[in-house]
Amino acid sequence: MSPDPGRAFTVEPWVVREPRLDLDRMGQVESVFALSNGHIGLRGNLDEGEPHAMPGTYLNSFYERRPLPYAEGGYGYPESGQTIINVTNGKLIRLLVEDEPFDLRYGQLRRHERVLDLRAGMLTREVEWASPAGRVVRVRSTRLVSLTQRAIAAICYEVEVLDEPALLVVQSELVANEQLPARDEADPRVEAALTDPLVAEQHRSAEASATLLHRTRRSGLRVAAAMDHEVHGPDGVQVSTEATEDIGRTTVIARLEPGRTLRLVKYLAYGWSSRRSLPALHDQVRAALAAARYTGWDGLVAEQRQYLDEFWETADVEIDGDAELQQAVRLATFHVLQAGARAERRAIGAKGLTGEGYDGHTFWDTETFCLPVLSHLAPEAAADALRWRQSILPLAYERAEQLGLAGAAFPWRTIRGQECSGYWPAGTAAFHINADIADAVRRHVAATGDEVFEREVGLELLVATARLWRSLGHHDSSGEFRIDGVTGPDEYTAIVDNNVYTNLMAQQNLRYAAEVAARHGRAAARLGVDAEEMASWRDAAKSMRIPFDEVLGVHPQAEGFTHHQVWDFEGTPPDKYPLLLNVPYFDLYRKQVIKQADLVLAMQLRPDAFDLEQMRRNFAYYEALTVRDSSLSACTQAVVAAWTGHLDLAYDYLAEAALVDLDDLAGNSDHGVHIASMAGTWTAVVAGFGGMRMDAGGGGISFAPRLPPALSRISFGLRWQGRQLRVEIRPDEVEYRLVSGPPMRLRHHGEPLALDDEPQVRDIPVLDPVEPVEQPHGRAPKGRHPGS
Amino acid sequence: MSPDPGRAFTVEPWVVREPRLDLDRMGQVESVFALSNGHIGLRGNLDEGEPHAMPGTYLNSFYERRPLPYAEGGYGYPESGQTIINVTNGKLIRLLVEDEPFDLRYGQLRRHERVLDLRAGMLTREVEWASPAGRVVRVRSTRLVSLTQRAIAAICYEVEVLDEPALLVVQSELVANEQLPARDEADPRVEAALTDPLVAEQHRSAEASATLLHRTRRSGLRVAAAMDHEVHGPDGVQVSTEATEDIGRTTVIARLEPGRTLRLVKYLAYGWSSRRSLPALHDQVRAALAAARYTGWDGLVAEQRQYLDEFWETADVEIDGDAELQQAVRLATFHVLQAGARAERRAIGAKGLTGEGYDGHTFWDTETFCLPVLSHLAPEAAADALRWRQSILPLAYERAEQLGLAGAAFPWRTIRGQECSGYWPAGTAAFHINADIADAVRRHVAATGDEVFEREVGLELLVATARLWRSLGHHDSSGEFRIDGVTGPDEYTAIVDNNVYTNLMAQQNLRYAAEVAARHGRAAARLGVDAEEMASWRDAAKSMRIPFDEVLGVHPQAEGFTHHQVWDFEGTPPDKYPLLLNVPYFDLYRKQVIKQADLVLAMQLRPDAFDLEQMRRNFAYYEALTVRDSSLSACTQAVVAAWTGHLDLAYDYLAEAALVDLDDLAGNSDHGVHIASMAGTWTAVVAGFGGMRMDAGGGGISFAPRLPPALSRISFGLRWQGRQLRVEIRPDEVEYRLVSGPPMRLRHHGEPLALDDEPQVRDIPVLDPVEPVEQPHGRAPKGRHPGS
Repeated sequence: MSPDPGRAFTVEPWVVREPRLDLDRMGQVESVFALSNGHIGLRGNLDEGEPHAMPGTYLNSFYERRPLPYAEGGYGYPESGQTIINVTNGKLIRLLVEDEPFDLRYGQLRRHERVLDLRAGMLTREVEWASPAGRVVRVRSTRLVSLTQRAIAAICYEVEVLDEPALLVVQSELVANEQLPARDEADPRVEAALTDPLVAEQHRSAEASATLLHRTRRSGLRVAAAMDHEVHGPDGVQVSTEATEDIGRTTVIARLEPGRTLRLVKYLAYGWSSRRSLPALHDQVRAALAAARYTGWDGLVAEQRQYLDEFWETADVEIDGDAELQQAVRLATFHVLQAGARAERRAIGAKGLTGEGYDGHTFWDTETFCLPVLSHLAPEAAADALRWRQSILPLAYERAEQLGLAGAAFPWRTIRGQECSGYWPAGTAAFHINADIADAVRRHVAATGDEVFEREVGLELLVATARLWRSLGHHDSSGEFRIDGVTGPDEYTAIVDNNVYTNLMAQQNLRYAAEVAARHGRAAARLGVDAEEMASWRDAAKSMRIPFDEVLGVHPQAEGFTHHQVWDFEGTPPDKYPLLLNVPYFDLYRKQVIKQADLVLAMQLRPDAFDLEQMRRNFAYYEALTVRDSSLSACTQAVVAAWTGHLDLAYDYLAEAALVDLDDLAGNSDHGVHIASMAGTWTAVVAGFGGMRMDAGGGGISFAPRLPPALSRISFGLRWQGRQLRVEIRPDEVEYRLVSGPPMRLRHHGEPLALDDEPQVRDIPVLDPVEPVEQPHGRAPKGRHPGS
Repeated sequence: MSPDPGRAFTVEPWVVREPRLDLDRMGQVESVFALSNGHIGLRGNLDEGEPHAMPGTYLNSFYERRPLPYAEGGYGYPESGQTIINVTNGKLIRLLVEDEPFDLRYGQLRRHERVLDLRAGMLTREVEWASPAGRVVRVRSTRLVSLTQRAIAAICYEVEVLDEPALLVVQSELVANEQLPARDEADPRVEAALTDPLVAEQHRSAEASATLLHRTRRSGLRVAAAMDHEVHGPDGVQVSTEATEDIGRTTVIARLEPGRTLRLVKYLAYGWSSRRSLPALHDQVRAALAAARYTGWDGLVAEQRQYLDEFWETADVEIDGDAELQQAVRLATFHVLQAGARAERRAIGAKGLTGEGYDGHTFWDTETFCLPVLSHLAPEAAADALRWRQSILPLAYERAEQLGLAGAAFPWRTIRGQECSGYWPAGTAAFHINADIADAVRRHVAATGDEVFEREVGLELLVATARLWRSLGHHDSSGEFRIDGVTGPDEYTAIVDNNVYTNLMAQQNLRYAAEVAARHGRAAARLGVDAEEMASWRDAAKSMRIPFDEVLGVHPQAEGFTHHQVWDFEGTPPDKYPLLLNVPYFDLYRKQVIKQADLVLAMQLRPDAFDLEQMRRNFAYYEALTVRDSSLSACTQAVVAAWTGHLDLAYDYLAEAALVDLDDLAGNSDHGVHIASMAGTWTAVVAGFGGMRMDAGGGGISFAPRLPPALSRISFGLRWQGRQLRVEIRPDEVEYRLVSGPPMRLRHHGEPLALDDEPQVRDIPVLDPVEPVEQPHGRAPKGRHPGS
């Protein structure tokens, strides 16, 4: 929301190019250029390590414990948290040119370009640099984190001397306990816990390869990092490797003539475990490394391309009429894939593996924003993320018990499953995460039709969460089922009764759990579910209290919300945003001011619970109260704006969601990219302008496409129960095409449509004009549509 | 509430006697035997220092800063707290008997008795002890903290040898940075901040006297402690004094024949300042010491007795029919006096100066429970406590501004005025403290008729708090004035809308502020109050929303409260109490379970807002939900039980309030005595059984006395607008007597009564039988009344 100070990147359809180095944007660019396969994450740091904003090499779920202190403690407060840590850095390749270190801050930088290629899945870099002594070199590096070989990353590094011969020394390293910029931590104990978190266990080196094994001090996790190299250079090139506790270093020395190239391919393998022995882990990474060498650089590049070609065939969203948005939507889709592709039964964090924001934690974002997209584009990744939730059920059962509840209470924020939230009103009390997980199960099963998954994974998650809701709520004397004292998605309101979002999601959770338990009777019985329990879920769902303000004709976000004082938006200058940094919670909680879509998100996820008139009135009401101090809001507002006929506004919100990291709109992209907003970008296109909804029952899919006036065409694809479907929206008509799979039925603007090999074209009904809506003073999205 | 394991003390009307030493009860006894004048506090530690539960020497408002850490911080969270610290210990007198230290854990203790005399204001101790080597001595010590000379404490210490001559060495000391038992602190930084908090600045010694000056490390406060001695012993007695940084030591050596006595009078003077220079503070304590020596031991003893005689003349409450209660009520009254007597524009803490519980902080207890008593018994102390509130107004204005509010926001807990609460839902959000302060002003002015105080102190406090309420609440579309998102007295419910207690107290605050501002127009104008502002206060008061549940016919504690699930009391075993230590806040907040009187306290403080039928229904409803996990509850329940005709129950609650420390009912008397419960004891007698109320307008006083069946007589006194009044309740009649002062009017059970020199006797109307009420399973007070 800060004024646009020019962009870091050029606008191109399939690549993100940084045409020159800008030290002030380094953090943002490191995040945008982060490569990941969901298991390994490498921030877009320079090969030579420095300068940097934040060096980052991450392994999914590899964390250190940190103390969580409280001025005044309370029962059930978690005593320790989990923080993602920077593991052994293997992307370091330092260069000496005639004794002068290749460091862009010195000498003369003649050219510096980096390109993230979204089809190749690689980050390339080209530098032309004159050393302070005037030697000119060209450095070309290409980096990938393999989507096909989960434990592997690789770098191809080439140096060329441009003017006169020079002696080059290349040091390719593994560095553990890398020195990091100081943290902004009030608590020195946290600082202490996270400084030098790795304890050396073993180091090995051979000719061109090295292996380092470490263990974290408190969490007791073991990590192995190994590297191997292929060197192509002039005769006389010398290669040697040494290793000490925290450093592995392969040194390549060569005297290079102008026009000749020294080429180094660095293979990196990572592995970690909480249980495997030192030799086992050592051998595991060496084996992965051997496989990678066997595949070779060209092989890895080809595999990567092939994997992505297959992905893009379904996933690509084409947008005609807005080149910036075209690029942004593709980058967003790419990062969502990167976050989840090979996470494989581990968590998908709010920042993926692109930075240390939010301590690397996973929240409800994953299930609500990310998985519905992956279920349509990379279903196995979505399934694995939910299998991870299933794997942490024992911890969630324990937490529920500690809280005096039945079933499972999933952690509000975590890496490995333990609750790590240090502020319960916006943590533990946000029970909706449990219904969000259930909803992700429902959407996944609907999108894939995977009954085995439903029975083996879904059922247990549904039963556990339904039990939670049944014990968290109660029937009051009038028979209504109430859920009191919880916090919904909007973090500017907390500890409220009957939050509509929570109650609607819990209602669906209860209802769907009963349905699935009935469908898989024997499996349900093994979980102790009987007919009485299922009836109690249906009954609670049926009696669920959904407050409605008859005077205003809108749903209050929670009981009593619409009676609260409206925030003084006129009196709030722009520098007071985000409000949570400048006003106390108490003041936010008691007033009508909304950080992020809550009731509006309820309308997106439970459209069956609202008629169009209610949706319009609600949207208008909440639009005037929502300040979007969270990046989880614009994408949802885009969807509901589109549904309620505010196409220009939807377009503005879509752009805000899509450009959050490319334009660093939240000012914190340096901490990692906003995976949920990126996933929400896809949803804003497909559910918003495509009008895609799945029937509450789960069987059917429908579309109600409409283009915003600024765009001339949107084409998107998705997987649907074993099919590949593509939808192309043009100003007045839409074409549905079955790319692969058996014939199917769908609905187009309410009308049934049977689809087989033959594409079907349908007219788009004319939109009745709607009353414009207003945002809080100064909080309207940047007007992007023509005439704004 | 733990089972009664016998008592620490004997039952006697005017003294509290510990007949033998019980090491397990040491902490409780140290608190009960603590002496204080509101400026200096000395815990009832043994003269020789050890064994101890917690050594304690406190000076009002002398504190150290400590970090307040947060797992997740937030805007407006206080970053540092204030903790009362143990200052230079001057009550230490060690004894060596022929080289063997007098330590009760060794040798043979033949007799050990301590007596707190409530009329003398002194703690005496008599010990007969045989050393391990068999030498028998008798030690007699008497300690006082002077109520007349604020900076002074004194000890008379006598040793007698009983069998054969012995060489005695008495070491009378000042010790700074005394070693303390380990704190139960999760945070090592807090431990660090509070270990050795005093930095030595100067030490001086002369013949029999020494002075130590220190400064706190972080808060930068300077403290001076000085001692001087008079020694009476056999010829050849040798006296010398030395001082080092943290120790001043006067050594007295004497060879004593059997039957002879070595007598030492130790004078102690304390002073502290945040501003005065080292020499100034040094001279200040030496001057106080000189005055004390000039007065002499006998003089100090006589002054003390005279001060207390005058106090008890009004303050004494006589109870016939329950000797335990008689003693307890007197002890309670004594401790309330001690807490406030000479606090003199400094805070009165929740524990007085008897222990380190709650870090020595002052809460709303002071105004709501303590000051209304002091206004009737020691009005100058009450006035000074409110002058202290006035003195911290600049900080309260600042805090309000930080919170985005007008007027003043007083701290929920503090020593010197800065907010020290580290959990805002039960701290900052408990805004009612501001109305409680205003109410204490109202009661004080009504009780004293002090118009100068009203204008000079009251007006500013009232205007500042009225402005707070005006900005904290708002008129909703129906015109009602709502106060949303605050926390009332009951800490098992938080962040609610329209808490009835808060709204009624705010209503009175607004109304009374307008009234006083009108009465002192010029002074109000100087504070910027104009007719418009006064009208806006009256208007807000008039439109104040007071929710009422029409279906149940009771007032909900706050909006929606009566719809919440009722706590499962049957399923809660006794060891789960206090609940806050065993269940999470979130579960407490969302259910109907009450820690402490809230709506019931509203009925006590605003009886004008309820008719008798409502009071009865409300009392019955809330009685069934209140678990009394706070010691601030029983006294209030006693008052309203008496008002609603539950006299036996009122009696049970009165006993619980009165015996809280004598019987260590909360199990934490070792942290200091419960000043609010002690003050509430007086209130339970006078407002409860005496039926004393002041007209909302402030002009009149009324009584509606009734004895509980178990008692045969209650007599109490109070000051009323310059008069001394005594009321004697007998089973069927009551006698009103004007002890001093001009004729007055009062009401007796609603009937007007004019009182002059002639006592008036009136019949007590017969009480209609009432429906019994019930407490939560297992939470009824201990039945004390006959037949229970």
